[in-house]
Amino acid sequence: MDKVIVTGCAGFIGSNLVDHLLKKGKQVQGIDNFKTGRIEFLDEAFSNPNFKFKNVDLFTNNNLVDSFQGYDILYHFAANADIRFGYQNPRKDLEQNTIVTHNVLEAARLAGINKIVFASTGSIYGESKIIPTPENSPFPIQTSLYGASKLAAEGLIQAYSETFGIQAWIFRFVSILGPRYSHGHVYDFYKQLLVNPKLLKVLGDGSQRKSYLHVNDCLMGIDIGIDKSDEKINIFNLGIDGTCSIKDSINWITKSLRINPRIEFENKDRGWVGDNPHIHLDIDKLSKLGWQPKNSIEQSVVDTVKFLEKNHWLQ
Amino acid sequence: MDKVIVTGCAGFIGSNLVDHLLKKGKQVQGIDNFKTGRIEFLDEAFSNPNFKFKNVDLFTNNNLVDSFQGYDILYHFAANADIRFGYQNPRKDLEQNTIVTHNVLEAARLAGINKIVFASTGSIYGESKIIPTPENSPFPIQTSLYGASKLAAEGLIQAYSETFGIQAWIFRFVSILGPRYSHGHVYDFYKQLLVNPKLLKVLGDGSQRKSYLHVNDCLMGIDIGIDKSDEKINIFNLGIDGTCSIKDSINWITKSLRINPRIEFENKDRGWVGDNPHIHLDIDKLSKLGWQPKNSIEQSVVDTVKFLEKNHWLQ
Repeated sequence: MDKVIVTGCAGFIGSNLVDHLLKKGKQVQGIDNFKTGRIEFLDEAFSNPNFKFKNVDLFTNNNLVDSFQGYDILYHFAANADIRFGYQNPRKDLEQNTIVTHNVLEAARLAGINKIVFASTGSIYGESKIIPTPENSPFPIQTSLYGASKLAAEGLIQAYSETFGIQAWIFRFVSILGPRYSHGHVYDFYKQLLVNPKLLKVLGDGSQRKSYLHVNDCLMGIDIGIDKSDEKINIFNLGIDGTCSIKDSINWITKSLRINPRIEFENKDRGWVGDNPHIHLDIDKLSKLGWQPKNSIEQSVVDTVKFLEKNHWLQ
Repeated sequence: MDKVIVTGCAGFIGSNLVDHLLKKGKQVQGIDNFKTGRIEFLDEAFSNPNFKFKNVDLFTNNNLVDSFQGYDILYHFAANADIRFGYQNPRKDLEQNTIVTHNVLEAARLAGINKIVFASTGSIYGESKIIPTPENSPFPIQTSLYGASKLAAEGLIQAYSETFGIQAWIFRFVSILGPRYSHGHVYDFYKQLLVNPKLLKVLGDGSQRKSYLHVNDCLMGIDIGIDKSDEKINIFNLGIDGTCSIKDSINWITKSLRINPRIEFENKDRGWVGDNPHIHLDIDKLSKLGWQPKNSIEQSVVDTVKFLEKNHWLQ
């Protein structure tokens, strides 16, 4: 039976991954430092004897090798996952995404782990001229410190793979929605509407188009990518056919909440410095291996709102 | 008159750049820590009143902003420049190339410098399937820790440009030859032949093809890229039309030295782990702005051998 490590196990996607792997019967060693993760997300995992947990800071800890000994595959999902605040603290993405990935790779190598799964992002394509954007699109220009830090992490993983023989699966995500989603625009809008259900203030003009994937579809995609692709380095987009506008998303949120607020748009062409106005990934490569998202973008948004309504402690 | 900073000013390319900028009448602040740079390379610069020097470690120094105040343009040429030793010390490229670039960018931003010139590498294309490789080739896979660290640095520069309005010129070099060249295969071969002119041991089978550009042509290319391209982010390959094999290069070296050693090849398909068997960059983009290398690869090799013969202190 596979013994797996999940870094960032208390995060939105990481904790869903842990539950998913436990359901498949894996032995899971979860690692988190609760800087952005939530211990409540591990309630289900802690009730499973196949789950072990270590509170470790992957940036400062000098003894990661001990924690990594005896495992077969490492899912590196720990990250500073919020693209929006790079300009306030330009070193954070470097430390938490790039340097931490180096620390994890080096410890994995020394511990003899030779399979790595990495949560990357469609942000690394910058403002691609090819939309939907395939994995082998032209060499991109970075537009955010977050994207740059994940690109750097991907490069490290690839170089480790080539230099030390580690096998890698890199998944480039669009924005993910679903249970335990706890940052991003649906969360921000929900919080605003909880305080004042009559008014919603929106950065941008509402016309920005984005893709959103349900976390369950994301996890299925990761499984299929690992099971069906056995190259030294395996890179897959995880997105959805089609996009929605922020206006669509607002309609679904307010309909789900049965409210009808006034919407105030701030007419900028994008929401924040470093935001990508349009991320829409080509998912042909993984689709050809048999994967298809089951949830529409609307279903993902509604599912997220329902989770937030049931989990006011998250506010 | 422009006031410029050159990091890595005592390195092979950095010191040639300093002399070149001083000849053009610029005021130059050179920065180095002599870890791989040589103070002798600055002999000419020190005799020029427009040159100032600071011994600063860009990785550990927390007060770079002071050193950067009052300058218009920063040439970031400090780096761990040897691709070959990543597997012996996997953190070195991360620290000296990626993290140092972040330190330099952040200090430049805080000091109000809004133009950056960066020495990148054709290694970031990994094992490109498109040869010669253009700047907009498909999204590459990294094959060395060195390449990954430079890719990460490029991403940081691009993200700083987008986030903070810094203008950037990124030059991706093939291997550079010429005066002050002090690592790489011509240097290694010359050193071997100095000890024993009758035998040369060569990693690989001698069929590997590479491009080499003369440092003077490299500096002319940088000037033309900066003068003729005024985008927010300007990316140019700096290489040469054509390649030579290691066997060609050995012939030119031994002919120049007037010796005829026995050559022993170790028949591997590449010289070392992480080495690229074939780097040949497409230089159309910069050529269209009026740049062409003046030195053939043979001339560059011979010029390098002549420099090494005159500078035995370098051994």
